[in-house]
Amino acid sequence: MLDYAEPISRLIDELRRLPGIGHKSAQRIAFHLLRVPPEEVRRLISAIEEVKEKITLCSICNNFTDRDPCRYCTNPARDRSVICVVEEPTNLVTIEKTREYRGLYHVLHGALSPIRGIGPEELKIKSLLERLRDGHVKEIILATNPNTEGEATASYLARLLKPLGVTVTRIAMGLPVGSDLEFADEVTMHKALANRRQI
Amino acid sequence: MLDYAEPISRLIDELRRLPGIGHKSAQRIAFHLLRVPPEEVRRLISAIEEVKEKITLCSICNNFTDRDPCRYCTNPARDRSVICVVEEPTNLVTIEKTREYRGLYHVLHGALSPIRGIGPEELKIKSLLERLRDGHVKEIILATNPNTEGEATASYLARLLKPLGVTVTRIAMGLPVGSDLEFADEVTMHKALANRRQI
Repeated sequence: MLDYAEPISRLIDELRRLPGIGHKSAQRIAFHLLRVPPEEVRRLISAIEEVKEKITLCSICNNFTDRDPCRYCTNPARDRSVICVVEEPTNLVTIEKTREYRGLYHVLHGALSPIRGIGPEELKIKSLLERLRDGHVKEIILATNPNTEGEATASYLARLLKPLGVTVTRIAMGLPVGSDLEFADEVTMHKALANRRQI
Repeated sequence: MLDYAEPISRLIDELRRLPGIGHKSAQRIAFHLLRVPPEEVRRLISAIEEVKEKITLCSICNNFTDRDPCRYCTNPARDRSVICVVEEPTNLVTIEKTREYRGLYHVLHGALSPIRGIGPEELKIKSLLERLRDGHVKEIILATNPNTEGEATASYLARLLKPLGVTVTRIAMGLPVGSDLEFADEVTMHKALANRRQI
């Protein structure tokens, strides 16, 4: 970018590496940072630094945590007979928000993707198997994403886990609540029909 | 946010203060920063720090710059008889991208807005008047935004500048190139008609 002073272009380039930030957003954020008081920028920087310093992966479930084991794994109120398997820590938060699930979690940190060279070894699968050893876990809920990679990961895990004697379930797929049939794609509509329930 | 470790919530809160960043984007960026190597985060932080350290306002045109006076004000190839007045440094970049304009700039750092308590004193107007003193400047192009506040600022400046004997012009308003009459709002359509030109 010929038109900016070099430190500004450099910041814009760095900001563009962030997910969901294109050139225009990066520019807006850079100029915003230029304008705000230094204390505000300091606060942002120290928040970033703190997250990198204090947050690690939970040695049991692989969720991001500031103490190990994490608050879910150590919470005596949670049901230790169920583990919900998710791709990313953000997915865990989505499930927590329902306030329905009271079991434990396991974060895979990705999904199987031959095209991107991500095989079972790249995911936190071995530690999931280890968690089943003591026989406390009765059910594994596969809550990987309802897309090709998430489905492939769920099938792979189901094949791996079923012989171990645990119940393996998959989250339901169908029409989102509040949506309209008119806008449903064929695959979702197909799932919604196939998974219909008697009322 | 009950569901995140405290340093993560704190970072999400700080990221949400950035323009155009909502809760979901802040969350995505925070988890991205957690995932990337420390060097990458270091680079982002040092880019932010450098911008705050090295960038100041040009003492002539008030553009953000890493040297004072800025590259526009000191460029001997630029036409010193024209000053284009913009609200923000980003607007200047938009004009530079056309590669049509070769004059100087003046950044107001805002627009008049009684509702937000921004009067002439809050804008860099006094320094604009000072630049006209030596009589070199023949034309002032008012390139404030084509909205209520930008229009008010342009009218105010026109009233102020005309008595000083400079030509005062305003950028054209009309239908954007590549657009469709079907989607034009009434005010733009009105401007497009009123400013029609013989071909």
